[in-house]
Amino acid sequence: MIDDTIAAISTPLGEGAIGIVRLSGPRAVEIASKLFVSAKKRDWINGGSHRLIYGHVVDPETKEMVDEVLLGLMRAPHTYTREDVVEFNGHGGIVPLRRILELALRYGARLAEPGEFTRRAFLNGRLDLAQAESIIDVIRAKTDAGLRLAMSNLRGELSTRVGQFQDQLLGLVARVEATIDFPEEDLEEVTREDLITITGGVLSGVEGLIEQAAGGRLYREGIRAAIIGRPNVGKSSLLNALLREKRAIVTEIPGTTRDVIEEVVNIRGIPVRLMDTAGLRATSDVVEKMGVERSRDALRLADLVLLVLDASTGLTDQDREIIELAGDRKGIILINKSDIGDGRALEREVRPAAGDKPVKIISVETGEGLPDLERTIEELVLGGRVEAADTFLVSNVRHKEALEKCREFLREAREGLLQGRNLDLVAIDLRAAWEALGLITGSTVSEDIVERIFRDFCIGK
Amino acid sequence: MIDDTIAAISTPLGEGAIGIVRLSGPRAVEIASKLFVSAKKRDWINGGSHRLIYGHVVDPETKEMVDEVLLGLMRAPHTYTREDVVEFNGHGGIVPLRRILELALRYGARLAEPGEFTRRAFLNGRLDLAQAESIIDVIRAKTDAGLRLAMSNLRGELSTRVGQFQDQLLGLVARVEATIDFPEEDLEEVTREDLITITGGVLSGVEGLIEQAAGGRLYREGIRAAIIGRPNVGKSSLLNALLREKRAIVTEIPGTTRDVIEEVVNIRGIPVRLMDTAGLRATSDVVEKMGVERSRDALRLADLVLLVLDASTGLTDQDREIIELAGDRKGIILINKSDIGDGRALEREVRPAAGDKPVKIISVETGEGLPDLERTIEELVLGGRVEAADTFLVSNVRHKEALEKCREFLREAREGLLQGRNLDLVAIDLRAAWEALGLITGSTVSEDIVERIFRDFCIGK
Repeated sequence: MIDDTIAAISTPLGEGAIGIVRLSGPRAVEIASKLFVSAKKRDWINGGSHRLIYGHVVDPETKEMVDEVLLGLMRAPHTYTREDVVEFNGHGGIVPLRRILELALRYGARLAEPGEFTRRAFLNGRLDLAQAESIIDVIRAKTDAGLRLAMSNLRGELSTRVGQFQDQLLGLVARVEATIDFPEEDLEEVTREDLITITGGVLSGVEGLIEQAAGGRLYREGIRAAIIGRPNVGKSSLLNALLREKRAIVTEIPGTTRDVIEEVVNIRGIPVRLMDTAGLRATSDVVEKMGVERSRDALRLADLVLLVLDASTGLTDQDREIIELAGDRKGIILINKSDIGDGRALEREVRPAAGDKPVKIISVETGEGLPDLERTIEELVLGGRVEAADTFLVSNVRHKEALEKCREFLREAREGLLQGRNLDLVAIDLRAAWEALGLITGSTVSEDIVERIFRDFCIGK
Repeated sequence: MIDDTIAAISTPLGEGAIGIVRLSGPRAVEIASKLFVSAKKRDWINGGSHRLIYGHVVDPETKEMVDEVLLGLMRAPHTYTREDVVEFNGHGGIVPLRRILELALRYGARLAEPGEFTRRAFLNGRLDLAQAESIIDVIRAKTDAGLRLAMSNLRGELSTRVGQFQDQLLGLVARVEATIDFPEEDLEEVTREDLITITGGVLSGVEGLIEQAAGGRLYREGIRAAIIGRPNVGKSSLLNALLREKRAIVTEIPGTTRDVIEEVVNIRGIPVRLMDTAGLRATSDVVEKMGVERSRDALRLADLVLLVLDASTGLTDQDREIIELAGDRKGIILINKSDIGDGRALEREVRPAAGDKPVKIISVETGEGLPDLERTIEELVLGGRVEAADTFLVSNVRHKEALEKCREFLREAREGLLQGRNLDLVAIDLRAAWEALGLITGSTVSEDIVERIFRDFCIGK
């Protein structure tokens, strides 16, 4: 039983039209009633749940009016957290939101930790762990494809499949234990065959989920790409062309440093984070200065390299140096300016040094080859030839690890069955496989892991 | 009658716990009903106003689930705009919010212009113009004092006072016109005395408002301050000391360029924007490079100059150069490091060159003199010796101009009455004064000005 009441600003900080301070817990309504004065002086507290009441937040001590708000009253259990929830829907300024929050804290709420609202939803059984984790994926989705995946997890599709495998494993364990308990019935050989089949079935299901999880991570988090090349080959025009075309879904990633700005482009559903290292998009003056050195920096961070050459000038020493620098990094060699130079000739020249990088002829100016470039990026990424470095959420790595652990135990169990190992040992493996799956839905997860997961959330969620 | 329905994302863009897409207009509910599927399949449309309904936004074409939302239903006229308003309260991600907005637009809404919701509140008579303008002040308030002022305007206190003066002026005009119409009654001399008294009364009331408006602007917008001085005198320590002490209310101003970052510090209720020009807060390495040149840049933008000297080294040629550079700019000369140098001696040395700048001895290291520095800044600003450059909102300049115009006409009217000018002329002045006041509440304002005012608002407000 959670007995304290938490509060936080739940909208992104910044000047906005609407800002929300959210309270959740047994005292949420009582605390709100001290700060909130309904415009009609009605008895809003006892008037039913899921209502919006117009009024003002007033500092009870100074009687100062802090903001004009709509108060959202939601009574347990049909709320985000399954507790009483109150939302102060204010004018969206930073100072009034902070004041409302301060008042809530002064009158008995505690500042919520990151993700604590969602954590309560999990602890109170409204969501399982995989669903709770998917909420952060909904928020951070960069493309429609990423959103689709996150929403399917939020609806519980991953949980349902994992749950089915868990049920099957429990059934298996029961059968194995029955066989252990009644060895005299001499059914062991038949049972063993049967057990091998079922174990194999769960195993291939889990293997499917592992593949899916890898794809899911790509759609969710995307990859980092760097456009490199010597000055004047058209790097910044390429970046701008990709950005312009995809304007509607371009977003700046908050939290990136001031030195490296990332712009996310949607390439066939995959969020590609184009790194704007030190002025790639700044004045052409700065771009001029970007040569081998800057390419080196960009390379260090990138999952995918777009190496640009210039068909109108042919291959220079600096080009060769940069190609060498890129070495065996995954990437694509782009021969730009095919409209004013001989792309084919340069392609023949560069091919021997290209290694396994595809070579593509494009013209940013005319748009030639750009759709093909997008397809090539998609193939490289989905074909598994480009893999994002492990960075972001605990949850992604966590699911993958849990599934891989489950796979390991299942393989071990199957091996044991095949080799006629003692069934006691097989049962241990199967139970361990079941537990590994429970890490995903949270049925077997430790408090420590739960804490780590929700730490990734934003404040107020 | 406004007959279209507008939509916008009303929370600041960024990853947040809650994001809102807002619709307003006659078709708001109808459009929402196409996108929203209530979890309980209830008839939420006819179920009464000011309710929160749990469900999902589903793309009607693809049947794809876009987000899990709480739908806020508010029926006209008791809404922000006095029209039907629907708010989709989603998970706060950028992609799902954009998808919801796109669906709303596809099914008949139009993208709202900046401030258009509030503009409708004004056009529909829920707020007068001064109140509508105060909303942006609530959002942008940087200190409690600024918020207090904005809230008092939002409650209509400015409007009420202006309205009282308008009423008095209408009464005056009526009396003047009565005297014009019945000159034979020979009451003119008595009336004239009377009219002079009343006009004078309104005049001094308006003058009071002008003074108040000037003070209001300071609390609302604050001033820009630059910390200048040669390397190693302790500029960045001073900046950090001021920031650290005031951490709770420090905010970064969105929209500033990457070159000049401003941090707002609350100094006795006045938002002081400390300019971080090119690395003032960066590594000490960069700070080292900040000499005369950078001081010149900072000076150009500042309303107030904090010129730092070093008691431990005495006055150098570069110090003298910077003092000269500051010239007659309003500011304070700070003698830092009084804990390790002779502050008094340096004070005597620098006083002759200080002009009308106060000289203060401080030690950022020990904290000596910092409270006194804050008091001095307050005095300089409130005493009118530092004035913010006209920058921000139309509204502030607008109120000031309207009041000054009114004052001019009132002076003219009083002059006319004193000199026995023809009452027809006096009546024209009085009516003009009345009209000038109407610019503030919006009763006499042109469509063009209304447009300019709301253009300053954020999208979704």
